[in-house]
Amino acid sequence: MNKKNLRRPSEQISAILASNMRRLRKAKGLSQEELADIANLHRTYIGSVERSERNVTLSSLETIAKALDVSVIDLLTEDKSHD
Amino acid sequence: MNKKNLRRPSEQISAILASNMRRLRKAKGLSQEELADIANLHRTYIGSVERSERNVTLSSLETIAKALDVSVIDLLTEDKSHD
Repeated sequence: MNKKNLRRPSEQISAILASNMRRLRKAKGLSQEELADIANLHRTYIGSVERSERNVTLSSLETIAKALDVSVIDLLTEDKSHD
Repeated sequence: MNKKNLRRPSEQISAILASNMRRLRKAKGLSQEELADIANLHRTYIGSVERSERNVTLSSLETIAKALDVSVIDLLTEDKSHD
């Protein structure tokens, strides 16, 4: 009955989120630790999302988006400018 | 230390998600139970998301989007056509 806990997002969407987070964080000149401080999340949590290891919740997506001054949709939209 | 578990998405994004789910589900002529069957989620879970009661995970957003033949971004984008 632990099926829900074992669910994971697709590699595709996890990779888009991770790539956008790294790109937007670096564009602001922030370390993972500095972003974690701004977002009031743990540094290791930020790192794990950037390594596509997390099944993030909508509230965490919102928290991260706000800290990076973007929308949740921006975080989940593939950045075509770097293809 | 239960702060993470208590986090909730904003009312705004929860309401957009709920509204889009209902609209897209009804456009397909599906009941909550039928959508739950297609998505392999529980009927009460679908209902609770449509009542803005859940902090959904990215994997659940993907599962619901797939069952409704839309993208996660579609689910989270405010539908301006019904304003």
